[in-house]
Amino acid sequence: MIIALKQGTEKEEADKFVLFMESRGLTVHVSEGETQTVLGLVGDTSSLDPRTMEAHHLVAKVVRVQEPYKRANRLFHPEDTRIDITADGGVHSIGGGKLGIIAGPCSVESPGQITGIAKEVKAAGAGFLRGGAFKPRTSPYSFQGMGCEGVDLLVAAKKETGLPLVSELMEIHQLEVFDEIDIIQVGARNMQNFNLLKELGKCGKPILLKRGLASTVTELLMAAEYIIAGGNDRVILCERGIRTFESFSRNTLDIAAVPFLKQKSHLPVIVDPSHATGIAGLVPAAAKAAVAAGADGLIIEVHNDPENAFSDGEQSLTPPEFASLMETLKKYAALEGKIL
Amino acid sequence: MIIALKQGTEKEEADKFVLFMESRGLTVHVSEGETQTVLGLVGDTSSLDPRTMEAHHLVAKVVRVQEPYKRANRLFHPEDTRIDITADGGVHSIGGGKLGIIAGPCSVESPGQITGIAKEVKAAGAGFLRGGAFKPRTSPYSFQGMGCEGVDLLVAAKKETGLPLVSELMEIHQLEVFDEIDIIQVGARNMQNFNLLKELGKCGKPILLKRGLASTVTELLMAAEYIIAGGNDRVILCERGIRTFESFSRNTLDIAAVPFLKQKSHLPVIVDPSHATGIAGLVPAAAKAAVAAGADGLIIEVHNDPENAFSDGEQSLTPPEFASLMETLKKYAALEGKIL
Amino acid sequence: MIIALKQGTEKEEADKFVLFMESRGLTVHVSEGETQTVLGLVGDTSSLDPRTMEAHHLVAKVVRVQEPYKRANRLFHPEDTRIDITADGGVHSIGGGKLGIIAGPCSVESPGQITGIAKEVKAAGAGFLRGGAFKPRTSPYSFQGMGCEGVDLLVAAKKETGLPLVSELMEIHQLEVFDEIDIIQVGARNMQNFNLLKELGKCGKPILLKRGLASTVTELLMAAEYIIAGGNDRVILCERGIRTFESFSRNTLDIAAVPFLKQKSHLPVIVDPSHATGIAGLVPAAAKAAVAAGADGLIIEVHNDPENAFSDGEQSLTPPEFASLMETLKKYAALEGKIL
Amino acid sequence: MIIALKQGTEKEEADKFVLFMESRGLTVHVSEGETQTVLGLVGDTSSLDPRTMEAHHLVAKVVRVQEPYKRANRLFHPEDTRIDITADGGVHSIGGGKLGIIAGPCSVESPGQITGIAKEVKAAGAGFLRGGAFKPRTSPYSFQGMGCEGVDLLVAAKKETGLPLVSELMEIHQLEVFDEIDIIQVGARNMQNFNLLKELGKCGKPILLKRGLASTVTELLMAAEYIIAGGNDRVILCERGIRTFESFSRNTLDIAAVPFLKQKSHLPVIVDPSHATGIAGLVPAAAKAAVAAGADGLIIEVHNDPENAFSDGEQSLTPPEFASLMETLKKYAALEGKIL
Repeated sequence: MIIALKQGTEKEEADKFVLFMESRGLTVHVSEGETQTVLGLVGDTSSLDPRTMEAHHLVAKVVRVQEPYKRANRLFHPEDTRIDITADGGVHSIGGGKLGIIAGPCSVESPGQITGIAKEVKAAGAGFLRGGAFKPRTSPYSFQGMGCEGVDLLVAAKKETGLPLVSELMEIHQLEVFDEIDIIQVGARNMQNFNLLKELGKCGKPILLKRGLASTVTELLMAAEYIIAGGNDRVILCERGIRTFESFSRNTLDIAAVPFLKQKSHLPVIVDPSHATGIAGLVPAAAKAAVAAGADGLIIEVHNDPENAFSDGEQSLTPPEFASLMETLKKYAALEGKIL
Repeated sequence: MIIALKQGTEKEEADKFVLFMESRGLTVHVSEGETQTVLGLVGDTSSLDPRTMEAHHLVAKVVRVQEPYKRANRLFHPEDTRIDITADGGVHSIGGGKLGIIAGPCSVESPGQITGIAKEVKAAGAGFLRGGAFKPRTSPYSFQGMGCEGVDLLVAAKKETGLPLVSELMEIHQLEVFDEIDIIQVGARNMQNFNLLKELGKCGKPILLKRGLASTVTELLMAAEYIIAGGNDRVILCERGIRTFESFSRNTLDIAAVPFLKQKSHLPVIVDPSHATGIAGLVPAAAKAAVAAGADGLIIEVHNDPENAFSDGEQSLTPPEFASLMETLKKYAALEGKIL
Repeated sequence: MIIALKQGTEKEEADKFVLFMESRGLTVHVSEGETQTVLGLVGDTSSLDPRTMEAHHLVAKVVRVQEPYKRANRLFHPEDTRIDITADGGVHSIGGGKLGIIAGPCSVESPGQITGIAKEVKAAGAGFLRGGAFKPRTSPYSFQGMGCEGVDLLVAAKKETGLPLVSELMEIHQLEVFDEIDIIQVGARNMQNFNLLKELGKCGKPILLKRGLASTVTELLMAAEYIIAGGNDRVILCERGIRTFESFSRNTLDIAAVPFLKQKSHLPVIVDPSHATGIAGLVPAAAKAAVAAGADGLIIEVHNDPENAFSDGEQSLTPPEFASLMETLKKYAALEGKIL
Repeated sequence: MIIALKQGTEKEEADKFVLFMESRGLTVHVSEGETQTVLGLVGDTSSLDPRTMEAHHLVAKVVRVQEPYKRANRLFHPEDTRIDITADGGVHSIGGGKLGIIAGPCSVESPGQITGIAKEVKAAGAGFLRGGAFKPRTSPYSFQGMGCEGVDLLVAAKKETGLPLVSELMEIHQLEVFDEIDIIQVGARNMQNFNLLKELGKCGKPILLKRGLASTVTELLMAAEYIIAGGNDRVILCERGIRTFESFSRNTLDIAAVPFLKQKSHLPVIVDPSHATGIAGLVPAAAKAAVAAGADGLIIEVHNDPENAFSDGEQSLTPPEFASLMETLKKYAALEGKIL
């Protein structure tokens, strides 16, 4: 961390400030220029908040040179993290050269619906089944998910197909019914629900962490850091579009975040082309782009009857559309040296 | 709600669609144009999601004419809602012609700090004391608040000064220690933590609901709707800046949201100039602008020693700065016909 | 400017880099820390682009300490700039304690319309008449303005009322017909039309420079710098809302930009509440907020028949609404110590 | 276009409004519901501005069903437009199954630089040479381009290599020196410089139209409409990133805009991964994603010595990096059935 003191700072005052920083366990290198004194701080600066430090009357500017995340940082963990789920005798993976495809409906609606879709996405090559039992909805008057009954239907679909399950958890006590859920999803609106993140740091399951609508990639990595710092290093980062002025698509897919996150972190990075675009007709192009940009997986909404879906029908592929996309994605995965 | 069917839709198909909508309890008025059929839906459309309906193969466009919120809507509740807190024999109010000023430090740090500031902001005319005991922080390595001990210190400050308390709750079980907290704050990052909102709908205390960083005003009103639908109609809306491309200020204060929310809703609307700007030197101008725009109150960070604050020092006023601002605000309140 | 070299940079390489920077006429102060070398550059760094410098393989981070604008900077020009226009024997001013009110229709439409409105806004206390003759429109099929004929009608209205004129210029050769226009407006979409800015630096008239929809305040000041560097220091900055994800208002009025610009620059700062909100019913609140935030003036759209306006009717006040707002604004101006 | 009148509108008033709309040459279908009257407008509504119409006191809501662009609309021009440039005996194409690659430095700097790079990008398979002679720069103190001398150097490089030229024009009179420039680029900051667009509608050369930083895709298509309406239908649309809150990348590449624009318009769509990301290390991933998303071409910055580039070095590939990327892109183009 570099701190530029204000021009005209008296030496005596600067010395006091240096002592203050050293009292926090940091080594301070002082560079006295003709017009300005610049301090270089060495040590663990991850707990220092640049904004707070700029409140000091002597400080002109604070610049962080090192990233504020450590455990999610590739610098200290060069090799890729791979998430492996053993289910039905086989191993299903995301990351480390394996392209993991998670597919299924937005909401679990009925036994026939979820098991039917599960069979179809499995046949098309998906490695994981997604389905929402607890649904975060903007309106209190919208369908809020089937709840525990929905979880039971997911588990039945898993028994029938062998596909590991991915489902969203909205508050920590829902963990009690998530025994059979293999990967716990944290939704975009909960990305900075820090108490939830801390609790998930203690659970033994992989976490699929969705980027918040207005969160920077650094904030996404800091949210992952909360989980890892709690003891759980199996975190999957998910780019799902950010909120911008552009409204033709539901969100704006930040495709460059994929290679950027891969460079900065060892964690697997997947993309949700369904929420990112919000339009079924744009999902295939976005999915291909994600693989081409280096994503380790995709989470795609698939529904047998999008017109009558309880939620998100407009962005769901039908099973045949999904199967056709999977054929194409295999070719893209091959170009990227990944196994689908 | 108005639904335009696609050009070329067969009459038979359109009729089936009308029956389908009628089966949901709606009255449908059909207008058959030469090239396009348009449906007008009358009834309670608040549970219908326009996006989902656009998934239907017959539908070209869906337009909501009525707002999706009912209980927060001024249309059905024309008179202003006023929040009254009785404390220390007096009544402290926000809304309905009363300008409520909430002041205090970002974080509770020590007994001397919080009680000292409480006395000073009371002397300057503040009606409420704010202070964070549970702090949402981007980094797991930053100060996370004093927790229950912080709540105790707030209560002590209340006893000393008689000021009602405003403090942020991060998860529902913290309610157990919030007995003496008069107004419960829901932070920007929790604005769409729907489970939390539902629970707060059952508690008997007023809720200060902060707008999310990337939330529209309609989403803010829908979040309030969750609380009111749960049985708690004492909600205070708080504009605290949104996230935009501009970075000179911490957030961008959406000042026009104040008159817009006042027109659309009967709930009191307050402004947080501290988080909206993130710079102490901009707080007075933003506070005056908020009152001029029609706000029912302000929540302002005040710290006795901003340079050594545990958090948000850069945006905190000192007690003398706050006292001076209060003098000015009284004049603005008078112009707006409000009592401070 | 501060440059942090990458960790592990060899001394020899660092020395070469220092010589390279010195060859550009800068004095370089070197601070060799244990792990990192930091350079402090003194001299005129305004032509250096931090992004370009970060391309260098030795550079970890570049931080600008000084603002990149000089002539628009209050640091080098502490006193307020005031724009005075002498017309009809009187002096009309913006800035330096004078609140300048510019009012009139979006588009000039007919002799009766523009002169009629001119008389009414003058009677209400406006100091300047606005009216568009050349109109930037998103669609080539929309009304593009009356052109030269519109300018003639403005001039006739000026003769009748004595109000100085403000009108938008879209390309430089239109200057030929702008003899009688007193203040030349540069629209938001032309804020970074650098060739236009350079030419306007040579003309002797004050320039009302509107902030671009996606421009930072620093970019606005750099655009002003183009004009001043060309020899014309009579620039009025205009905050007119920026483009964000929020769509209830046409743009998002960045109210905190007003005090920020006033702190950073000596140039007068005005606000356009009409374009910022896009809704007539929000204009008064936004106008009051602007004055409370320290604006030196306002530019407000007024139309005698908003329902039939050729453009922007939805955001225009009627003359009586404008007159009523002016009465209120006088009280706000008085609180701010400004003369309207 | 659909217009919902306000609830409670008297029949007599509604009739008058209908007559008014019919007087504009439109056919109006009236649907009288129990609570609300809805009008369907048939005819050419492209000159109507929904915002302006919402100013009418009878109107509750206006919804455009048809897109406001006609000539750029695929609906009226189903087949792809392909841009062909004949140079040096060969034909270089963009669109219609041909993947056009435009490469070269941000700025022309010297004869050796531009001709050297031209040879290298040609050897790697680029079909067009780019180079800026007139440079739009945020600061008046930054390098503004070599001007006419830069154009001469481009022409020399074309003679040497046979590559057609792409260069940015900042104002219309520069056309005089653009005789040998094959494709005229309109920069992001000039996308809504409507006078420039009108003039370019009259020139006979293809126009590469870059999306503005805060422009929607609809506004981009309306800008193209200006050029086509002027008589020039050879327009290439360029997605180059939009401005959002996220700052790790220079802009946010809106990758979903590519398939969306391809669906809505017959014009070729290319992507600029250099400006979109602003970081050389992210350019290859963004370029691959663009091809996978269906782009008809790419414009990529290549510089022989990025560290000493006069501008944009941080986002420039070296010739070997570019050659390596081209090898990869050929495989992606093949998957998309495109010829590079």
